[in-house]
Amino acid sequence: MLNTYLKELEGNYLFTEIVNRTQAYTAVHPEAKVLRLGVGDVTLPLPQVITDAMHRAVEELAHAETFRGYGPENGQEWLRRAIIEHDYVPRGIYPDVDEVFISDGAGSDLGNLSELFAPGGRVAIPEPSYPAYVDTSRMAGREIEWLPCTRENGFVPALPKTRPDIIYLCFPNNPTGTVLTRSQLQQWVDYARENESIIIYDAAYECFIDDERIPHSIYEAEGAEEVAIEVCSFSKKAGFTAVRCGYTVVPQETGLWQMWMRRQCTKFNGASYISQRGAEAVYTPEGQQAIRENLRHYKETARLFREGLQDMGFEVYGGENAPYIWCRVPEGYTSWSFFDYLLEQYQIVCTPGAGFGRSGEGYVRFSAFSKREDCEQALKRLKNIG
Amino acid sequence: MLNTYLKELEGNYLFTEIVNRTQAYTAVHPEAKVLRLGVGDVTLPLPQVITDAMHRAVEELAHAETFRGYGPENGQEWLRRAIIEHDYVPRGIYPDVDEVFISDGAGSDLGNLSELFAPGGRVAIPEPSYPAYVDTSRMAGREIEWLPCTRENGFVPALPKTRPDIIYLCFPNNPTGTVLTRSQLQQWVDYARENESIIIYDAAYECFIDDERIPHSIYEAEGAEEVAIEVCSFSKKAGFTAVRCGYTVVPQETGLWQMWMRRQCTKFNGASYISQRGAEAVYTPEGQQAIRENLRHYKETARLFREGLQDMGFEVYGGENAPYIWCRVPEGYTSWSFFDYLLEQYQIVCTPGAGFGRSGEGYVRFSAFSKREDCEQALKRLKNIG
Repeated sequence: MLNTYLKELEGNYLFTEIVNRTQAYTAVHPEAKVLRLGVGDVTLPLPQVITDAMHRAVEELAHAETFRGYGPENGQEWLRRAIIEHDYVPRGIYPDVDEVFISDGAGSDLGNLSELFAPGGRVAIPEPSYPAYVDTSRMAGREIEWLPCTRENGFVPALPKTRPDIIYLCFPNNPTGTVLTRSQLQQWVDYARENESIIIYDAAYECFIDDERIPHSIYEAEGAEEVAIEVCSFSKKAGFTAVRCGYTVVPQETGLWQMWMRRQCTKFNGASYISQRGAEAVYTPEGQQAIRENLRHYKETARLFREGLQDMGFEVYGGENAPYIWCRVPEGYTSWSFFDYLLEQYQIVCTPGAGFGRSGEGYVRFSAFSKREDCEQALKRLKNIG
Repeated sequence: MLNTYLKELEGNYLFTEIVNRTQAYTAVHPEAKVLRLGVGDVTLPLPQVITDAMHRAVEELAHAETFRGYGPENGQEWLRRAIIEHDYVPRGIYPDVDEVFISDGAGSDLGNLSELFAPGGRVAIPEPSYPAYVDTSRMAGREIEWLPCTRENGFVPALPKTRPDIIYLCFPNNPTGTVLTRSQLQQWVDYARENESIIIYDAAYECFIDDERIPHSIYEAEGAEEVAIEVCSFSKKAGFTAVRCGYTVVPQETGLWQMWMRRQCTKFNGASYISQRGAEAVYTPEGQQAIRENLRHYKETARLFREGLQDMGFEVYGGENAPYIWCRVPEGYTSWSFFDYLLEQYQIVCTPGAGFGRSGEGYVRFSAFSKREDCEQALKRLKNIG
């Protein structure tokens, strides 16, 4: 009667465990200045053009003449149009306005898209990976084929050995910071078309891409509209982790559009109007300029981490066209023992690679979303490891 | 491979069909002043104490010193505490602060709670009912036992004939406006305890209850914490249909708490911080007074509908301690043909009862959330039917 897959899922979630260990440390050392460099949460405030738009939306709801209630479950059309115009058309991608669905954040859609598929079945997941792909698949009782990403293969997963129903891909990658070239991405789309698999493409970090050879969207690969759903977010692009807004593209050609529309109209009442008005302001000229500046700041933090750690002799990956720095731990440490070591000796909180999957063992993740002064302070403290 | 239950679900959703027929009418009669009296969407603007709180939250996000990112997946603790203090403690109910989960609205949780249970299984659903219970159950491939609510049984469903895994109950009821007494509710809790069924209790309209004999919460029934999940919303209570915030109580004693926490931490990143600050303001003294005034307005609209329709000779149910008026259609009409008749002859949009289930045939629903002037105008137009 109960969902035994969900019931039997092990209890501890990576980020909860990090919080618990950090709290245990600060309880004993209340004076410690702990530097949180692990979690992928943004730290820069929202640009004024965005908060102005949200103030206006709040004011609309305060007055009878402008008050509004439920919006469309799939999101406001003006926001869907702005997304297409700015994020897709310049890349030669032309989704229909109804193929874009506004969400309350990528996390919800990445989880809920699982409902399009029958329970069970097969899924291919690169590892290390964002834990939610795995947990979501386990809750649905799916058989998982792991696609290991190691320094030997440049953290680029090989194609699955057995045909999966669903493939989760995330580039720029969380946690390794790996990016794919156009031809590498095309291989995945070709594989999915040949095997009738569906790719759920997590593009939450595309805004970190500067290199023109790196695709921002899976729809830059030929034929992707037949096999790929793309999940995007304003969280990292515009600092919306508290505001909650994202979007997902489900092309008609996937044969899944009608199902997703039906799912969303039944189990979702749309994202907050205020959040959607904030997201719309991201696409104004001032909004575009403001988020470019914020992203420049985070990219610079990524560079500081990468070069600082490299200078100290660490083996470092990612951090270019990506917000995450994937750092090999010194000989003799596991990723959790190095986490404990950094916490206890340097009051630095990183994210242990093992929390992202077996091949994450031996690595820790640093995040470019960390506060700049914390990054700089951490590098100073760490100079002692050298 | 695909979820065939979802794929094969018939396409048209009740409210979409109403919108389509209304648009078809207005396309041909652009001059018509159509009165929308069907949909359960609020129409009064948000009280200033709530919009002030949301403005402050937006401002917090605009400045580095007060900026914040992700909140707890299960919601801000200050909001969970305010809910317990105001909505439960005065009724002798003492949920633990972690048993309250903040959502982005009741719609999401009513849908997603289905994931706690294995696919298939049995569910009991009173009918007529809110369509999402049915669609959600069908998407999970569940066998449905219908519990007809007719004028013969006073629109109070009988207990199921066969033990269900899940029972959906909603009181004050949508669409019939029926309320249960404490002893009637206790029968359901006793049944669920004897049969180890779980009740998903939709309490979205509890704020319409004035009669002290009518329970606001299922936890007013003895032992309900063992078998009931209660889903609540700020949508109707405080006009939050655009703002998106609700809450769900999952008691530890149900054995489902851990599973729901795991589900939410994996597939949900919390409700908007701005929305949660708005919800918190609902519980200030000014907030409580403001929403009481708005509710008084809607309750008066319900009374006008009820008495106005009764005076014209209609057979009318609900509308007391409930926002919905359940009106029997005249001899010779079906609920959809009466919908068309009202639209074409009087430019009045109601909600056809058949859209809520087989026993809804022969009724239409009017909503107390309609604009007062539209309600009054509609009653004037309808005097001609008499």
